[in-house]
Amino acid sequence: MFFASDNTGPVHPKVMEALAAANTGYASPYGNDDLTAEAVTKVREVFEAPDAMVHFVPTGTAANALLLATLAKPWDAILCSDVAHVHVDECNAPEFFAGGAKLVLVPSSGGKITATDLHERTRSVAQGDVHCPQRGPVSITQVTERGGVYTLDEIGAICDVAKSHNMPVHLDGARFANAVAALGCTPAEMSWKAGVDAVSFGGTKNGLMAVEAAILFDPDKSFEFELRRKRAAHLFSKLRYLSAQMLAYLTDDLWLEMASEANRTGQKLAKALPDAGARLADPADASLMYVEWDRQAEERLRKTDAQFSSSEIEHDRFLARLVTNWATTDDDVESFITALKG
Amino acid sequence: MFFASDNTGPVHPKVMEALAAANTGYASPYGNDDLTAEAVTKVREVFEAPDAMVHFVPTGTAANALLLATLAKPWDAILCSDVAHVHVDECNAPEFFAGGAKLVLVPSSGGKITATDLHERTRSVAQGDVHCPQRGPVSITQVTERGGVYTLDEIGAICDVAKSHNMPVHLDGARFANAVAALGCTPAEMSWKAGVDAVSFGGTKNGLMAVEAAILFDPDKSFEFELRRKRAAHLFSKLRYLSAQMLAYLTDDLWLEMASEANRTGQKLAKALPDAGARLADPADASLMYVEWDRQAEERLRKTDAQFSSSEIEHDRFLARLVTNWATTDDDVESFITALKG
Amino acid sequence: MFFASDNTGPVHPKVMEALAAANTGYASPYGNDDLTAEAVTKVREVFEAPDAMVHFVPTGTAANALLLATLAKPWDAILCSDVAHVHVDECNAPEFFAGGAKLVLVPSSGGKITATDLHERTRSVAQGDVHCPQRGPVSITQVTERGGVYTLDEIGAICDVAKSHNMPVHLDGARFANAVAALGCTPAEMSWKAGVDAVSFGGTKNGLMAVEAAILFDPDKSFEFELRRKRAAHLFSKLRYLSAQMLAYLTDDLWLEMASEANRTGQKLAKALPDAGARLADPADASLMYVEWDRQAEERLRKTDAQFSSSEIEHDRFLARLVTNWATTDDDVESFITALKG
Amino acid sequence: MFFASDNTGPVHPKVMEALAAANTGYASPYGNDDLTAEAVTKVREVFEAPDAMVHFVPTGTAANALLLATLAKPWDAILCSDVAHVHVDECNAPEFFAGGAKLVLVPSSGGKITATDLHERTRSVAQGDVHCPQRGPVSITQVTERGGVYTLDEIGAICDVAKSHNMPVHLDGARFANAVAALGCTPAEMSWKAGVDAVSFGGTKNGLMAVEAAILFDPDKSFEFELRRKRAAHLFSKLRYLSAQMLAYLTDDLWLEMASEANRTGQKLAKALPDAGARLADPADASLMYVEWDRQAEERLRKTDAQFSSSEIEHDRFLARLVTNWATTDDDVESFITALKG
Repeated sequence: MFFASDNTGPVHPKVMEALAAANTGYASPYGNDDLTAEAVTKVREVFEAPDAMVHFVPTGTAANALLLATLAKPWDAILCSDVAHVHVDECNAPEFFAGGAKLVLVPSSGGKITATDLHERTRSVAQGDVHCPQRGPVSITQVTERGGVYTLDEIGAICDVAKSHNMPVHLDGARFANAVAALGCTPAEMSWKAGVDAVSFGGTKNGLMAVEAAILFDPDKSFEFELRRKRAAHLFSKLRYLSAQMLAYLTDDLWLEMASEANRTGQKLAKALPDAGARLADPADASLMYVEWDRQAEERLRKTDAQFSSSEIEHDRFLARLVTNWATTDDDVESFITALKG
Repeated sequence: MFFASDNTGPVHPKVMEALAAANTGYASPYGNDDLTAEAVTKVREVFEAPDAMVHFVPTGTAANALLLATLAKPWDAILCSDVAHVHVDECNAPEFFAGGAKLVLVPSSGGKITATDLHERTRSVAQGDVHCPQRGPVSITQVTERGGVYTLDEIGAICDVAKSHNMPVHLDGARFANAVAALGCTPAEMSWKAGVDAVSFGGTKNGLMAVEAAILFDPDKSFEFELRRKRAAHLFSKLRYLSAQMLAYLTDDLWLEMASEANRTGQKLAKALPDAGARLADPADASLMYVEWDRQAEERLRKTDAQFSSSEIEHDRFLARLVTNWATTDDDVESFITALKG
Repeated sequence: MFFASDNTGPVHPKVMEALAAANTGYASPYGNDDLTAEAVTKVREVFEAPDAMVHFVPTGTAANALLLATLAKPWDAILCSDVAHVHVDECNAPEFFAGGAKLVLVPSSGGKITATDLHERTRSVAQGDVHCPQRGPVSITQVTERGGVYTLDEIGAICDVAKSHNMPVHLDGARFANAVAALGCTPAEMSWKAGVDAVSFGGTKNGLMAVEAAILFDPDKSFEFELRRKRAAHLFSKLRYLSAQMLAYLTDDLWLEMASEANRTGQKLAKALPDAGARLADPADASLMYVEWDRQAEERLRKTDAQFSSSEIEHDRFLARLVTNWATTDDDVESFITALKG
Repeated sequence: MFFASDNTGPVHPKVMEALAAANTGYASPYGNDDLTAEAVTKVREVFEAPDAMVHFVPTGTAANALLLATLAKPWDAILCSDVAHVHVDECNAPEFFAGGAKLVLVPSSGGKITATDLHERTRSVAQGDVHCPQRGPVSITQVTERGGVYTLDEIGAICDVAKSHNMPVHLDGARFANAVAALGCTPAEMSWKAGVDAVSFGGTKNGLMAVEAAILFDPDKSFEFELRRKRAAHLFSKLRYLSAQMLAYLTDDLWLEMASEANRTGQKLAKALPDAGARLADPADASLMYVEWDRQAEERLRKTDAQFSSSEIEHDRFLARLVTNWATTDDDVESFITALKG
């Protein structure tokens, strides 16, 4: 039973087949190959954005840090939530790529920030005062790091505030597919139609081996992004093998199929937890959830082969993170709940 | 009536005399001159630290950023208060000099952080986890940006927490002299004896033209600091003119005399404010204070030649910052209070 | 006929099989999995270096830039040849990763530098003078960018000079396997036994999809390297798929088998060129060569499907780069020579 | 007898008077004062450039590194001579300020590069190829580091080549005044009229305490420059004391008077050297020269109080650098020549 993360599971067989199919003969390196052209076109189709800049990188941190560095100046403040992956889990990668920009934190609930709080926090960034960091991009995460999913209205309101301060909006979509599946919307609706300027479109947490698409809807900075990618050592010579994964991902809606399945088992798990004596710490809208339980539950689960991260947050009280993925089975969920109940 | 900042006032005549006296003939450049050697020795004497690294730079931001960069790795978190000058007023200089390190904020009251809050916040910096920023230096400000002065016990407690996590402590002493004067302690007691590892020892806000001493009590990184200073274009060829200022500053306790005078007028002002209808927003322990008053008071003061910064924090309610300096006169204070009263 | 680069060819079938075999069920992320442990052990065995630091990254530029940044300070000079990949082809990645270090160039012949020239050039880097960049690492490339292979004695002499100046030595081994095959030596003899401190051990140009091993024989900076890798967004969550490739590479000497085959066709090509009217611009010791021919030859070749890069260096005179790889066939070589002859 | 550098001499008395005069009462900080406004206007007048960006910094390295960082992207090549101060003597400051840009060297004679060599070297910077550094600014030094002075035609030809490649031109004018005095031209003729985009206009080596003006003739990036200056800790709170120096410098042509005097004694020295048994290593057009002499001469001079730098370049043969400044006397020159002759 593997609930530690959605990056511990297997690559989808169709993706493995695509890699094998890509391995025939020679191809031009560094993305000058047919598969890459096809994959870029496919991403643009899926996002209904025929002119968008689309480049592939191997990790979510690379997509985030390269996009933020392209949007921010070194003397800027990048506004994000206090639990944002870019702030908490990337070992200062955004600061490194953006030449020493500063992350300024907006309070969050369930990983979400509100347009109101963003507006309030932005006002503290004193634009035009040479002593202070200037207003740079806003970064939000969808699905959030705590398992919530922003509604389209919430994203739109955040983008409105950002636009009112001339700040571009980046969306960390490591679990973009899960959010689209949860909302039943289109990728365009959840991004540029709502006002988002840049998307880290994740694949690695949803059945790919290691690919994310970095998307800028305004392609003006495309070559700058390419230079940044190369300079950061993220330009693959055999890029076709990233592109092949992305192409398989977007073919026949495999990406949505996998995300929907992860959400299905995630929701099944979330719904079963309360009756098993656990408590959702935050609303769980997709495949990821934070859960509280007591020491007895913790100890029962640790005796099984269940994989998950947890820590004691107060005496005899534990907070755990559980994540399902496309390969999670009903059996996995049921066994976990059974063990939890004791 | 100039209360906008202690960097708007004149240079002390004795310092001007020292500059003139230094201007005789030739001297070796880049600090290889007699005046620099004397000034370094004098700083060490004043701090009772015969082996300390002492280097001169022209601005407080340079001292802070160079010291923090010497103490922090690019992947570190630098812990400081949420109103720290290094965070709010240096346009990402610490991030720039430290190669993209992250400032992590500790809540403050009157500009002070507590040992308890520091301990709590430090625990959130997950040392040894490669995904997260690592534990770097702690930076505190004395006198704080809000006008408070840490007691020696408070500094000692903060240093104890820092040491327990193997984190070095930096003290931003832009107003170090004012704090020593307020506490009646020695520089050593307020720094290395309390556990402080590095001090930005300010002069510019206290009657000098433009000099701060960067001090590391452990001199092991002295040459690294020199390389960082040169690389940041802060090594002066005619360094003797910085050294001459510092030497005059520390001769016959001029530094303490000026700071004491600034504190005296500052305290006179602080004590007179309540009767004049204003309210101290935070305890004012030295020469700097944040004050609240109403629109009528604001308008009365703006009709005079009084210089100060203020902003409307709620309807018809203003928050102002007032700072005295060595040249502030009793007359200045009295005129200001008279105008405030209306 | 694909001679443009050894990164345009296919991944070896055994490597594809290893990827498929790795795709069973779940594994701990970020390298905390069994395959990674096995692959690290295997690299250490192959290098006879049981304590060496070994970490996997996806590109050669990542291996080079991360290793150089670990060995160099931001104020250092990194000495390398004037045709070094790290200087010419990495879009300032070493400067970026090393926080603004400077690359200082040593003249080269056939891509090789000499110990004498290195010594001469090093003397111009004025160690201990704060105005100047300080002496940092030396970086050499084996097989060189021009197709030459350093002898063990040549590497030893370079390392001796470096050591005499307290400078560590990095070896860019994008084609390490080809060099070992050409020299008939062991990896240890071509690295730490000769005095090399760090190796970028390439796989991508020799039949892998995208993996290089970054090796430091002194493991003291292993965690620093890991932090740098994460901060540069090069820590893969599904690292097992990199490790699986490296493990297959080193199993049953597949790496040497592929390199030997590339060298065999490369040497066949090199030997046939003179009789076909072309001239080797530099000694071709392995699978890569620079070749000169006239306009007629250039035009004949461009009418075929032959892939290679070339440019007109003087009137009607072209310089081309040709590279063979593990999948190059005798037929490829013969067809190319036939077309060249016309 | 002080010939070691023009930064070892005294500040001109008129500059000291101006500092004293500036020290009356209060002034707005950070350059928002009347003296700064006046000094900026004066620089614009002297350069016949009423719209130019003009900002003051304390060191030549600061002016150079901030201007180059404003003109270059982190992935750019900055082209300069192989003896350029920015390359040799600034401890990687340009690389630091420009976020890891690369300095690419053009061969020089007497410190000068030629338009032809610049064109040749620029062609090696493969614009538009994502693997390579891109074409950034050209930086030349006037007076050169070897004592030569470019003619206006030479500067014009270099700027023409740079413009033909869309590269801006920076002029390191640490000794700008000496060059203007030597050429008998106007500042405008030696800068924007010849095609120069940015100037580091030096004062420190010519009788000031520590001030240089950073000038960009196109003021579009003025606020970016200010942010970079603040972020690099080079924004002085008491900026008026820099401005006062610059104002005195440009009043009644003091800057030209001092430079002319330094050139006069410099030329007197240069002309007397051959008869005294020494040899000019490069043409000496202003106040700085490189001179060769034998061991006997070296030993005779070292027995006097003469200050200069020298090194043994071959057996019993020494290369020395001699620099005069505004305060050098005829007596100094004559005594030196007498000692040299022995």
